[in-house]
Amino acid sequence: MFKNIYIYGLGMMGGSIASSIKNNNVTDNIIGYDINPNTLRYSMKNKFIDEVDDNNFLKLKKSDFIIICTPLSAYNDIFKIIKKYSPLKCLITDIGSTKVEVTDTAKKIFKNTDRIFIGSHPLAGKEKSGIKYANKDLFTGARVIVTFENNNKSKIVKNFWSNLGAKISIMSPKTHDLIVSKTSHVPHLLSYALVNTILKEKNIKNLNDFTGGGFKDFARIALSDPLMWKDISSTNKKNIIKSLDVLSNEFKLLKSMINKKNFKSLHRYFKNIKDKLS
Amino acid sequence: MFKNIYIYGLGMMGGSIASSIKNNNVTDNIIGYDINPNTLRYSMKNKFIDEVDDNNFLKLKKSDFIIICTPLSAYNDIFKIIKKYSPLKCLITDIGSTKVEVTDTAKKIFKNTDRIFIGSHPLAGKEKSGIKYANKDLFTGARVIVTFENNNKSKIVKNFWSNLGAKISIMSPKTHDLIVSKTSHVPHLLSYALVNTILKEKNIKNLNDFTGGGFKDFARIALSDPLMWKDISSTNKKNIIKSLDVLSNEFKLLKSMINKKNFKSLHRYFKNIKDKLS
Repeated sequence: MFKNIYIYGLGMMGGSIASSIKNNNVTDNIIGYDINPNTLRYSMKNKFIDEVDDNNFLKLKKSDFIIICTPLSAYNDIFKIIKKYSPLKCLITDIGSTKVEVTDTAKKIFKNTDRIFIGSHPLAGKEKSGIKYANKDLFTGARVIVTFENNNKSKIVKNFWSNLGAKISIMSPKTHDLIVSKTSHVPHLLSYALVNTILKEKNIKNLNDFTGGGFKDFARIALSDPLMWKDISSTNKKNIIKSLDVLSNEFKLLKSMINKKNFKSLHRYFKNIKDKLS
Repeated sequence: MFKNIYIYGLGMMGGSIASSIKNNNVTDNIIGYDINPNTLRYSMKNKFIDEVDDNNFLKLKKSDFIIICTPLSAYNDIFKIIKKYSPLKCLITDIGSTKVEVTDTAKKIFKNTDRIFIGSHPLAGKEKSGIKYANKDLFTGARVIVTFENNNKSKIVKNFWSNLGAKISIMSPKTHDLIVSKTSHVPHLLSYALVNTILKEKNIKNLNDFTGGGFKDFARIALSDPLMWKDISSTNKKNIIKSLDVLSNEFKLLKSMINKKNFKSLHRYFKNIKDKLS
Protein backbone atom coordinates (compact mmCIF):
# COMPACT_ATOMS: atom_id res chain seq x y z
CA MET A 1 0.00 0.00 0.00
CA PHE A 2 1.12 3.53 -0.69
CA LYS A 3 1.71 6.06 2.08
CA ASN A 4 1.13 9.18 0.00
CA ILE A 5 -0.49 9.17 -3.42
CA TYR A 6 0.10 12.33 -5.43
CA ILE A 7 -2.46 13.21 -8.11
CA TYR A 8 -1.05 15.66 -10.62
CA GLY A 9 -4.05 17.28 -12.30
CA LEU A 10 -7.55 17.26 -10.85
CA GLY A 11 -9.90 17.21 -13.81
CA MET A 12 -12.73 14.74 -14.30
CA MET A 13 -10.26 11.83 -14.41
CA GLY A 14 -7.98 12.97 -11.57
CA GLY A 15 -11.02 13.72 -9.43
CA SER A 16 -12.58 10.33 -10.20
CA ILE A 17 -9.32 8.60 -9.24
CA ALA A 18 -9.13 10.57 -5.99
CA SER A 19 -12.68 9.74 -4.94
CA SER A 20 -12.31 6.13 -6.00
CA ILE A 21 -9.09 5.83 -3.95
CA LYS A 22 -10.95 7.18 -0.92
CA ASN A 23 -13.95 5.00 -1.55
CA ASN A 24 -11.75 1.88 -1.73
CA ASN A 25 -9.39 2.85 1.13
CA VAL A 26 -6.30 2.50 -1.03
CA THR A 27 -4.20 5.02 0.95
CA ASP A 28 -4.43 7.22 4.02
CA ASN A 29 -3.24 10.34 2.31
CA ILE A 30 -3.93 11.89 -1.09
CA ILE A 31 -1.97 14.95 -2.16
CA GLY A 32 -3.39 16.91 -5.05
CA TYR A 33 -1.98 19.47 -7.46
CA ASP A 34 -3.65 21.43 -10.22
CA ILE A 35 -2.64 24.55 -12.14
CA ASN A 36 -6.05 26.01 -11.34
CA PRO A 37 -6.23 27.23 -7.68
CA ASN A 38 -10.06 27.10 -7.79
CA THR A 39 -9.91 23.40 -8.62
CA LEU A 40 -7.56 22.82 -5.69
CA ARG A 41 -9.88 24.69 -3.32
CA TYR A 42 -12.86 22.73 -4.62
CA SER A 43 -10.94 19.44 -4.19
CA MET A 44 -10.08 20.18 -0.57
CA LYS A 45 -13.50 21.52 0.31
CA ASN A 46 -15.21 18.44 -1.14
CA LYS A 47 -12.64 16.06 0.39
CA PHE A 48 -11.35 14.63 -2.86
CA ILE A 49 -7.83 15.09 -1.46
CA ASP A 50 -6.22 15.42 1.99
CA GLU A 51 -3.50 17.94 1.17
CA VAL A 52 -2.82 20.43 -1.59
CA ASP A 53 0.54 21.06 -3.16
CA ASP A 54 1.53 24.36 -4.81
CA ASN A 55 3.92 25.49 -7.52
CA ASN A 56 6.91 24.74 -5.28
CA PHE A 57 6.06 21.04 -5.51
CA LEU A 58 7.55 20.35 -2.06
CA LYS A 59 5.04 17.60 -1.34
CA LEU A 60 6.32 15.48 -4.21
CA LYS A 61 9.20 14.63 -1.86
CA LYS A 62 7.07 12.41 0.39
CA SER A 63 5.00 10.80 -2.37
CA ASP A 64 5.62 7.16 -3.23
CA PHE A 65 3.06 6.97 -6.06
CA ILE A 66 2.40 9.76 -8.54
CA ILE A 67 -0.51 9.69 -10.99
CA ILE A 68 -0.35 12.15 -13.87
CA CYS A 69 -3.83 13.21 -14.98
CA THR A 70 -3.12 16.04 -17.41
CA PRO A 71 -3.07 16.44 -21.20
CA LEU A 72 -0.22 14.48 -22.83
CA SER A 73 1.44 17.68 -24.02
CA ALA A 74 2.22 18.62 -20.40
CA TYR A 75 4.11 15.39 -19.58
CA ASN A 76 7.56 16.55 -20.64
CA ASP A 77 7.52 19.42 -18.14
CA ILE A 78 5.91 17.28 -15.46
CA PHE A 79 8.53 14.54 -15.76
CA LYS A 80 11.21 17.22 -15.25
CA ILE A 81 9.40 18.57 -12.18
CA ILE A 82 9.11 15.03 -10.79
CA LYS A 83 12.79 14.39 -11.41
CA LYS A 84 13.67 17.58 -9.56
CA TYR A 85 11.36 17.22 -6.53
CA SER A 86 10.34 13.59 -6.08
CA PRO A 87 12.08 11.11 -3.77
CA LEU A 88 14.81 9.03 -5.34
CA LYS A 89 12.58 5.98 -5.47
CA CYS A 90 9.06 6.41 -6.69
CA LEU A 91 6.54 4.90 -9.00
CA ILE A 92 4.75 7.04 -11.57
CA THR A 93 1.74 6.25 -13.71
CA ASP A 94 -0.74 8.20 -15.79
CA ILE A 95 -4.06 7.96 -17.62
CA GLY A 96 -2.98 9.09 -21.09
CA SER A 97 -4.38 7.64 -24.30
CA THR A 98 -1.03 7.00 -25.99
CA LYS A 99 1.91 5.20 -24.46
CA VAL A 100 5.02 4.83 -26.70
CA GLU A 101 6.08 8.46 -26.85
CA VAL A 102 5.47 9.23 -23.17
CA THR A 103 7.21 6.03 -22.03
CA ASP A 104 10.25 6.93 -24.14
CA THR A 105 10.27 10.48 -22.78
CA ALA A 106 10.04 9.18 -19.21
CA LYS A 107 12.95 6.80 -19.79
CA LYS A 108 15.09 9.60 -21.17
CA ILE A 109 14.33 11.97 -18.30
CA PHE A 110 14.44 9.42 -15.46
CA LYS A 111 17.53 7.64 -16.83
CA ASN A 112 19.92 6.48 -14.10
CA THR A 113 17.41 7.21 -11.34
CA ASP A 114 15.01 4.95 -9.47
CA ARG A 115 11.91 6.75 -10.66
CA ILE A 116 9.93 4.33 -12.73
CA PHE A 117 7.12 5.25 -15.09
CA ILE A 118 4.57 2.53 -15.90
CA GLY A 119 1.92 3.93 -18.21
CA SER A 120 -1.78 3.21 -17.66
CA HIS A 121 -4.75 3.86 -19.89
CA PRO A 122 -8.22 3.53 -18.36
CA LEU A 123 -10.77 2.92 -21.12
CA ALA A 124 -13.26 4.90 -19.13
CA GLY A 125 -14.34 8.50 -19.12
CA LYS A 126 -16.91 10.82 -20.42
CA GLU A 127 -17.06 13.80 -22.71
CA LYS A 128 -17.47 16.25 -19.81
CA SER A 129 -14.34 17.90 -18.39
CA GLY A 130 -13.66 19.19 -14.90
CA ILE A 131 -13.67 17.82 -11.36
CA LYS A 132 -17.39 18.56 -11.03
CA TYR A 133 -17.97 15.56 -13.29
CA ALA A 134 -15.79 13.24 -11.17
CA ASN A 135 -17.36 9.89 -10.31
CA LYS A 136 -16.12 7.55 -7.61
CA ASP A 137 -17.45 4.54 -9.53
CA LEU A 138 -15.85 5.42 -12.88
CA PHE A 139 -13.44 2.47 -12.72
CA THR A 140 -15.83 -0.17 -11.38
CA GLY A 141 -15.78 -2.86 -14.03
CA ALA A 142 -13.91 -0.62 -16.46
CA ARG A 143 -10.99 -1.87 -18.52
CA VAL A 144 -7.57 -0.39 -17.69
CA ILE A 145 -4.56 -1.15 -19.87
CA VAL A 146 -1.28 -1.22 -17.93
CA THR A 147 1.83 -1.19 -20.06
CA PHE A 148 4.43 -3.81 -19.42
CA GLU A 149 7.84 -2.38 -18.72
CA ASN A 150 9.08 -3.92 -15.51
CA ASN A 151 7.54 -7.05 -14.06
CA ASN A 152 7.36 -6.08 -10.38
CA LYS A 153 6.39 -2.48 -10.89
CA SER A 154 3.75 -3.30 -13.51
CA LYS A 155 2.25 -5.65 -10.94
CA ILE A 156 2.01 -2.85 -8.37
CA VAL A 157 0.27 -0.55 -10.85
CA LYS A 158 -2.02 -3.42 -11.88
CA ASN A 159 -2.98 -3.98 -8.24
CA PHE A 160 -3.65 -0.29 -7.77
CA TRP A 161 -6.27 -0.26 -10.55
CA SER A 162 -7.69 -3.61 -9.42
CA ASN A 163 -8.29 -2.05 -6.02
CA LEU A 164 -10.40 0.62 -7.75
CA GLY A 165 -12.53 -2.15 -9.28
CA ALA A 166 -11.03 -2.18 -12.77
CA LYS A 167 -10.28 -5.15 -15.03
CA ILE A 168 -6.67 -5.06 -16.23
CA SER A 169 -5.00 -5.91 -19.54
CA ILE A 170 -1.22 -5.82 -19.73
CA MET A 171 0.59 -5.13 -23.00
CA SER A 172 3.61 -3.31 -24.42
CA PRO A 173 3.33 0.42 -25.17
CA LYS A 174 3.76 -0.43 -28.85
CA THR A 175 0.89 -2.93 -28.99
CA HIS A 176 -1.25 -0.53 -26.98
CA ASP A 177 -0.75 2.36 -29.39
CA LEU A 178 -1.43 0.20 -32.44
CA ILE A 179 -4.63 -1.31 -31.06
CA VAL A 180 -6.16 1.84 -29.62
CA SER A 181 -5.45 3.73 -32.83
CA LYS A 182 -8.05 1.38 -34.35
CA THR A 183 -10.47 0.96 -31.46
CA SER A 184 -10.44 4.49 -30.13
CA HIS A 185 -8.37 7.12 -31.92
CA VAL A 186 -9.63 6.64 -35.47
CA PRO A 187 -13.27 6.24 -34.28
CA HIS A 188 -12.97 9.59 -32.54
CA LEU A 189 -11.37 11.32 -35.52
CA LEU A 190 -14.08 9.76 -37.64
CA SER A 191 -16.78 11.20 -35.42
CA TYR A 192 -15.33 14.68 -35.72
CA ALA A 193 -15.09 14.30 -39.51
CA LEU A 194 -18.61 12.98 -39.79
CA VAL A 195 -20.12 15.65 -37.59
CA ASN A 196 -18.29 18.30 -39.60
CA THR A 197 -19.79 17.10 -42.88
CA ILE A 198 -23.22 17.36 -41.24
CA LEU A 199 -22.55 20.83 -39.83
CA LYS A 200 -21.64 21.93 -43.36
CA GLU A 201 -24.86 20.56 -44.89
CA LYS A 202 -27.02 23.52 -45.87
CA ASN A 203 -30.26 21.54 -46.00
CA ILE A 204 -30.06 20.93 -42.27
CA LYS A 205 -31.47 23.98 -40.58
CA ASN A 206 -31.91 22.58 -37.12
CA LEU A 207 -29.53 19.80 -36.10
CA ASN A 208 -31.85 18.74 -33.28
CA ASP A 209 -34.38 17.56 -35.84
CA PHE A 210 -32.03 14.76 -36.83
CA THR A 211 -30.51 13.52 -33.62
CA GLY A 212 -31.83 10.00 -34.09
CA GLY A 213 -30.58 7.31 -36.38
CA GLY A 214 -27.07 6.83 -35.10
CA PHE A 215 -26.04 10.48 -35.22
CA LYS A 216 -26.40 11.10 -31.50
CA ASP A 217 -23.51 8.80 -30.61
CA PHE A 218 -21.18 10.50 -33.06
CA ALA A 219 -22.13 13.96 -31.85
CA ARG A 220 -21.51 12.91 -28.25
CA ILE A 221 -18.06 11.60 -29.15
CA ALA A 222 -17.27 14.82 -31.04
CA LEU A 223 -17.90 16.76 -27.81
CA SER A 224 -14.66 15.32 -26.35
CA ASP A 225 -11.85 17.60 -25.32
CA PRO A 226 -10.18 19.08 -28.46
CA LEU A 227 -6.80 19.50 -26.72
CA MET A 228 -6.78 15.86 -25.71
CA TRP A 229 -7.46 14.73 -29.27
CA LYS A 230 -4.85 17.07 -30.67
CA ASP A 231 -2.33 15.55 -28.22
CA ILE A 232 -3.37 11.99 -29.04
CA SER A 233 -3.06 12.66 -32.77
CA SER A 234 0.39 14.13 -32.35
CA THR A 235 1.73 11.35 -30.10
CA ASN A 236 0.32 8.43 -32.11
CA LYS A 237 0.70 9.91 -35.56
CA LYS A 238 2.04 6.87 -37.44
CA ASN A 239 -0.48 4.36 -36.14
CA ILE A 240 -3.34 6.77 -36.72
CA ILE A 241 -2.28 7.45 -40.31
CA LYS A 242 -1.92 3.71 -40.91
CA SER A 243 -5.32 2.95 -39.38
CA LEU A 244 -6.97 5.80 -41.30
CA ASP A 245 -5.59 4.25 -44.50
CA VAL A 246 -6.94 0.82 -43.57
CA LEU A 247 -10.33 2.38 -42.94
CA SER A 248 -10.23 4.34 -46.22
CA ASN A 249 -9.71 1.07 -48.05
CA GLU A 250 -12.66 -0.47 -46.24
CA PHE A 251 -14.66 2.55 -47.36
CA LYS A 252 -13.60 2.06 -50.96
CA LEU A 253 -14.74 -1.55 -50.76
CA LEU A 254 -18.17 -0.49 -49.45
CA LYS A 255 -18.48 2.24 -52.05
CA SER A 256 -17.56 -0.09 -54.86
CA MET A 257 -20.18 -2.66 -53.79
CA ILE A 258 -22.84 0.07 -53.75
CA ASN A 259 -21.67 1.59 -57.04
CA LYS A 260 -21.73 -1.78 -58.79
CA LYS A 261 -25.13 -2.54 -57.22
CA ASN A 262 -23.55 -5.64 -55.74
CA PHE A 263 -26.12 -5.69 -52.93
CA LYS A 264 -25.87 -9.43 -52.29
CA SER A 265 -22.22 -8.99 -51.35
CA LEU A 266 -23.10 -5.92 -49.31
CA HIS A 267 -25.71 -7.89 -47.38
CA ARG A 268 -23.15 -10.66 -46.76
CA TYR A 269 -20.61 -8.06 -45.65
CA PHE A 270 -23.01 -6.58 -43.03
CA LYS A 271 -24.20 -10.01 -41.89
CA ASN A 272 -20.68 -11.33 -41.51
CA ILE A 273 -19.75 -8.43 -39.21
CA LYS A 274 -22.90 -8.78 -37.13
CA ASP A 275 -22.34 -12.53 -36.75
CA LYS A 276 -18.78 -12.01 -35.58
CA LEU A 277 -19.87 -9.41 -33.04
CA SER A 278 -22.82 -11.38 -31.66
CA MET B 1 -59.70 9.02 -36.07
CA PHE B 2 -59.26 5.76 -37.90
CA LYS B 3 -61.74 2.89 -37.59
CA ASN B 4 -59.33 0.09 -38.47
CA ILE B 5 -55.58 0.46 -38.50
CA TYR B 6 -53.75 -2.29 -40.36
CA ILE B 7 -50.12 -2.99 -39.39
CA TYR B 8 -48.30 -4.90 -42.09
CA GLY B 9 -45.28 -6.52 -40.42
CA LEU B 10 -45.02 -7.02 -36.67
CA GLY B 11 -41.35 -6.77 -35.85
CA MET B 12 -39.87 -4.53 -33.17
CA MET B 13 -41.16 -1.41 -34.96
CA GLY B 14 -44.60 -2.76 -35.95
CA GLY B 15 -45.05 -4.10 -32.41
CA SER B 16 -44.00 -0.79 -30.87
CA ILE B 17 -46.48 1.09 -33.07
CA ALA B 18 -49.27 -1.34 -32.14
CA SER B 19 -48.69 -1.03 -28.41
CA SER B 20 -48.25 2.74 -28.66
CA ILE B 21 -51.54 3.02 -30.58
CA LYS B 22 -53.27 1.05 -27.82
CA ASN B 23 -51.58 3.03 -25.09
CA ASN B 24 -52.69 6.31 -26.65
CA ASN B 25 -56.21 5.15 -27.66
CA VAL B 26 -55.72 6.11 -31.29
CA THR B 27 -58.15 3.53 -32.67
CA ASP B 28 -60.60 0.88 -31.48
CA ASN B 29 -59.32 -1.83 -33.76
CA ILE B 30 -55.84 -2.89 -34.85
CA ILE B 31 -55.50 -5.55 -37.53
CA GLY B 32 -52.09 -7.19 -37.80
CA TYR B 33 -50.35 -9.21 -40.48
CA ASP B 34 -46.95 -10.89 -40.48
CA ILE B 35 -45.39 -13.56 -42.69
CA ASN B 36 -44.44 -15.44 -39.52
CA PRO B 37 -47.49 -17.20 -37.96
CA ASN B 38 -45.70 -17.43 -34.60
CA THR B 39 -45.38 -13.65 -34.53
CA LEU B 40 -49.09 -13.30 -35.26
CA ARG B 41 -49.98 -15.72 -32.46
CA TYR B 42 -47.66 -13.86 -30.07
CA SER B 43 -49.21 -10.50 -31.10
CA MET B 44 -52.76 -11.70 -30.41
CA LYS B 45 -51.88 -13.49 -27.18
CA ASN B 46 -50.12 -10.40 -25.83
CA LYS B 47 -52.85 -8.03 -27.09
CA PHE B 48 -50.68 -6.02 -29.44
CA ILE B 49 -53.47 -6.37 -32.02
CA ASP B 50 -57.21 -7.06 -32.00
CA GLU B 51 -57.46 -9.15 -35.16
CA VAL B 52 -55.08 -11.12 -37.33
CA ASP B 53 -55.13 -11.19 -41.11
CA ASP B 54 -53.80 -14.09 -43.19
CA ASN B 55 -52.35 -14.56 -46.67
CA ASN B 56 -55.75 -13.88 -48.23
CA PHE B 57 -55.51 -10.28 -47.02
CA LEU B 58 -59.32 -10.00 -46.76
CA LYS B 59 -59.09 -7.63 -43.80
CA LEU B 60 -57.30 -4.98 -45.85
CA LYS B 61 -60.76 -4.23 -47.25
CA LYS B 62 -62.03 -2.61 -44.06
CA SER B 63 -58.80 -0.78 -43.17
CA ASP B 64 -58.65 2.99 -43.54
CA PHE B 65 -55.02 3.37 -42.46
CA ILE B 66 -52.26 0.93 -43.38
CA ILE B 67 -48.78 1.10 -41.84
CA ILE B 68 -46.06 -0.87 -43.61
CA CYS B 69 -43.41 -2.06 -41.15
CA THR B 70 -41.29 -4.41 -43.26
CA PRO B 71 -37.92 -4.22 -45.01
CA LEU B 72 -37.94 -1.79 -47.94
CA SER B 73 -37.31 -4.60 -50.41
CA ALA B 74 -40.79 -6.00 -49.69
CA TYR B 75 -42.69 -2.77 -50.51
CA ASN B 76 -43.18 -3.43 -54.22
CA ASP B 77 -45.10 -6.65 -53.54
CA ILE B 78 -46.96 -5.10 -50.62
CA PHE B 79 -48.13 -2.10 -52.66
CA LYS B 80 -49.53 -4.56 -55.23
CA ILE B 81 -51.31 -6.52 -52.50
CA ILE B 82 -52.75 -3.29 -51.12
CA LYS B 83 -53.93 -2.21 -54.55
CA LYS B 84 -55.65 -5.57 -55.02
CA TYR B 85 -57.33 -5.87 -51.60
CA SER B 86 -57.64 -2.46 -49.96
CA PRO B 87 -60.70 -0.20 -50.12
CA LEU B 88 -60.72 2.36 -52.90
CA LYS B 89 -59.90 5.16 -50.53
CA CYS B 90 -57.21 4.57 -47.98
CA LEU B 91 -54.15 6.19 -46.51
CA ILE B 92 -50.89 4.29 -46.35
CA THR B 93 -47.72 5.12 -44.47
CA ASP B 94 -44.55 3.27 -43.48
CA ILE B 95 -41.46 3.48 -41.28
CA GLY B 96 -38.74 2.99 -43.92
CA SER B 97 -35.40 4.79 -43.83
CA THR B 98 -35.47 5.99 -47.45
CA LYS B 99 -38.32 7.80 -49.13
CA VAL B 100 -37.75 8.79 -52.80
CA GLU B 101 -37.76 5.34 -54.36
CA VAL B 102 -40.69 3.96 -52.34
CA THR B 103 -42.78 7.10 -52.93
CA ASP B 104 -42.17 6.83 -56.67
CA THR B 105 -43.05 3.13 -56.63
CA ALA B 106 -46.24 3.84 -54.70
CA LYS B 107 -47.25 6.56 -57.17
CA LYS B 108 -46.73 4.21 -60.09
CA ILE B 109 -48.72 1.36 -58.55
CA PHE B 110 -51.53 3.45 -57.02
CA LYS B 111 -51.87 5.71 -60.07
CA ASN B 112 -55.46 6.69 -60.86
CA THR B 113 -56.72 5.29 -57.54
CA ASP B 114 -57.52 7.01 -54.27
CA ARG B 115 -54.91 5.12 -52.30
CA ILE B 116 -52.40 7.62 -51.05
CA PHE B 117 -48.97 6.81 -49.71
CA ILE B 118 -47.38 9.38 -47.38
CA GLY B 119 -44.00 8.09 -46.24
CA SER B 120 -42.91 8.36 -42.60
CA HIS B 121 -39.53 7.80 -41.03
CA PRO B 122 -39.37 7.55 -37.24
CA LEU B 123 -35.82 8.34 -36.08
CA ALA B 124 -36.29 5.84 -33.30
CA GLY B 125 -35.47 2.21 -32.88
CA LYS B 126 -32.93 -0.13 -31.50
CA GLU B 127 -30.55 -2.73 -32.80
CA LYS B 128 -32.71 -5.61 -31.56
CA SER B 129 -35.22 -7.15 -33.99
CA GLY B 130 -38.51 -8.92 -33.26
CA ILE B 131 -41.77 -8.09 -31.52
CA LYS B 132 -40.32 -9.22 -28.18
CA TYR B 133 -38.35 -5.97 -28.18
CA ALA B 134 -41.40 -3.82 -28.86
CA ASN B 135 -41.79 -0.78 -26.61
CA LYS B 136 -44.99 1.23 -26.16
CA ASP B 137 -42.94 4.36 -25.36
CA LEU B 138 -40.62 4.15 -28.37
CA PHE B 139 -42.11 7.26 -29.99
CA THR B 140 -42.51 9.41 -26.90
CA GLY B 141 -40.42 12.48 -27.67
CA ALA B 142 -38.89 10.81 -30.74
CA ARG B 143 -38.51 12.63 -34.04
CA VAL B 144 -40.63 11.38 -36.94
CA ILE B 145 -40.12 12.74 -40.43
CA VAL B 146 -43.31 12.83 -42.50
CA THR B 147 -42.82 13.41 -46.20
CA PHE B 148 -44.78 16.14 -47.83
CA GLU B 149 -46.81 14.95 -50.79
CA ASN B 150 -50.34 16.10 -50.25
CA ASN B 151 -51.25 18.81 -47.78
CA ASN B 152 -54.35 17.28 -46.18
CA LYS B 153 -53.12 13.72 -46.09
CA SER B 154 -49.68 14.68 -44.74
CA LYS B 155 -51.51 16.46 -41.94
CA ILE B 156 -53.44 13.30 -41.04
CA VAL B 157 -50.22 11.23 -40.91
CA LYS B 158 -48.57 14.00 -38.89
CA ASN B 159 -51.43 13.90 -36.36
CA PHE B 160 -51.20 10.13 -36.13
CA TRP B 161 -47.54 10.29 -35.03
CA SER B 162 -48.21 13.28 -32.76
CA ASN B 163 -50.82 11.17 -30.99
CA LEU B 164 -48.08 8.61 -30.26
CA GLY B 165 -46.03 11.37 -28.61
CA ALA B 166 -43.62 12.08 -31.46
CA LYS B 167 -42.22 15.40 -32.66
CA ILE B 168 -42.77 15.84 -36.40
CA SER B 169 -40.67 17.34 -39.18
CA ILE B 170 -42.18 17.64 -42.63
CA MET B 171 -40.03 17.62 -45.77
CA SER B 172 -39.94 16.33 -49.32
CA PRO B 173 -38.79 12.75 -49.96
CA LYS B 174 -35.79 14.18 -51.83
CA THR B 175 -34.62 16.40 -48.95
CA HIS B 176 -35.22 13.53 -46.54
CA ASP B 177 -33.02 11.09 -48.45
CA LEU B 178 -30.21 13.61 -48.85
CA ILE B 179 -30.13 14.59 -45.20
CA VAL B 180 -30.44 11.14 -43.67
CA SER B 181 -27.72 9.83 -45.99
CA LYS B 182 -25.44 12.13 -43.97
CA THR B 183 -26.95 11.88 -40.51
CA SER B 184 -27.81 8.20 -40.50
CA HIS B 185 -26.88 6.07 -43.52
CA VAL B 186 -23.22 6.99 -43.86
CA PRO B 187 -22.67 6.85 -40.06
CA HIS B 188 -24.04 3.31 -40.06
CA LEU B 189 -21.95 2.22 -43.04
CA LEU B 190 -18.99 3.81 -41.33
CA SER B 191 -19.63 1.82 -38.18
CA TYR B 192 -19.68 -1.42 -40.13
CA ALA B 193 -16.45 -0.46 -41.92
CA LEU B 194 -14.74 0.55 -38.71
CA VAL B 195 -15.77 -2.56 -36.82
CA ASN B 196 -14.56 -4.68 -39.72
CA THR B 197 -11.06 -3.14 -39.64
CA ILE B 198 -10.97 -3.98 -35.93
CA LEU B 199 -12.20 -7.53 -36.43
CA LYS B 200 -9.37 -8.00 -38.93
CA GLU B 201 -6.68 -6.71 -36.52
CA LYS B 202 -4.58 -9.70 -35.48
CA ASN B 203 -3.20 -8.03 -32.36
CA ILE B 204 -6.66 -7.98 -30.83
CA LYS B 205 -7.25 -11.37 -29.31
CA ASN B 206 -10.27 -10.55 -27.21
CA LEU B 207 -12.48 -7.76 -28.47
CA ASN B 208 -14.07 -7.33 -25.02
CA ASP B 209 -10.75 -6.04 -23.71
CA PHE B 210 -11.21 -2.92 -25.81
CA THR B 211 -14.86 -2.04 -25.57
CA GLY B 212 -14.18 1.36 -24.06
CA GLY B 213 -12.95 4.48 -25.75
CA GLY B 214 -15.71 5.06 -28.24
CA PHE B 215 -15.71 1.61 -29.76
CA LYS B 216 -18.79 0.40 -27.92
CA ASP B 217 -21.11 2.81 -29.76
CA PHE B 218 -19.83 1.73 -33.13
CA ALA B 219 -20.15 -1.95 -32.30
CA ARG B 220 -23.71 -1.40 -31.14
CA ILE B 221 -24.58 0.35 -34.39
CA ALA B 222 -22.96 -2.48 -36.41
CA LEU B 223 -25.36 -4.93 -34.74
CA SER B 224 -28.24 -3.42 -36.74
CA ASP B 225 -30.20 -5.57 -39.16
CA PRO B 226 -28.02 -6.38 -42.24
CA LEU B 227 -31.05 -6.74 -44.54
CA MET B 228 -32.30 -3.31 -43.56
CA TRP B 229 -28.95 -1.72 -44.32
CA LYS B 230 -28.63 -3.56 -47.61
CA ASP B 231 -32.10 -2.21 -48.57
CA ILE B 232 -31.23 1.32 -47.45
CA SER B 233 -27.99 1.27 -49.44
CA SER B 234 -29.78 0.08 -52.55
CA THR B 235 -32.65 2.59 -52.34
CA ASN B 236 -30.51 5.63 -51.51
CA LYS B 237 -27.46 4.74 -53.58
CA LYS B 238 -26.71 8.15 -55.12
CA ASN B 239 -26.97 10.18 -51.92
CA ILE B 240 -24.92 7.64 -50.01
CA ILE B 241 -22.15 7.61 -52.61
CA LYS B 242 -22.14 11.42 -52.61
CA SER B 243 -22.04 11.62 -48.82
CA LEU B 244 -19.31 8.96 -48.62
CA ASP B 245 -17.24 11.09 -50.99
CA VAL B 246 -17.77 14.21 -48.87
CA LEU B 247 -16.66 12.26 -45.82
CA SER B 248 -13.63 10.85 -47.64
CA ASN B 249 -12.54 14.39 -48.40
CA GLU B 250 -12.97 15.35 -44.74
CA PHE B 251 -10.77 12.36 -43.92
CA LYS B 252 -8.10 13.50 -46.33
CA LEU B 253 -8.11 16.90 -44.68
CA LEU B 254 -7.63 15.33 -41.24
CA LYS B 255 -4.91 13.00 -42.49
CA SER B 256 -3.06 15.82 -44.18
CA MET B 257 -3.07 17.95 -40.99
CA ILE B 258 -1.66 14.99 -39.02
CA ASN B 259 0.88 14.11 -41.72
CA LYS B 260 2.15 17.69 -41.91
CA LYS B 261 2.21 17.89 -38.09
CA ASN B 262 -0.12 20.83 -38.39
CA PHE B 263 -1.45 20.23 -34.88
CA LYS B 264 -2.50 23.82 -34.26
CA SER B 265 -4.93 23.59 -37.16
CA LEU B 266 -6.07 20.18 -35.96
CA HIS B 267 -6.80 21.58 -32.51
CA ARG B 268 -8.75 24.44 -34.08
CA TYR B 269 -10.63 21.94 -36.27
CA PHE B 270 -11.72 19.89 -33.23
CA LYS B 271 -12.54 22.96 -31.16
CA ASN B 272 -14.59 24.52 -33.91
CA ILE B 273 -16.77 21.41 -34.20
CA LYS B 274 -17.23 21.14 -30.44
CA ASP B 275 -18.17 24.83 -30.20
CA LYS B 276 -20.78 24.48 -32.95
CA LEU B 277 -22.30 21.43 -31.25
CA SER B 278 -22.40 22.87 -27.75
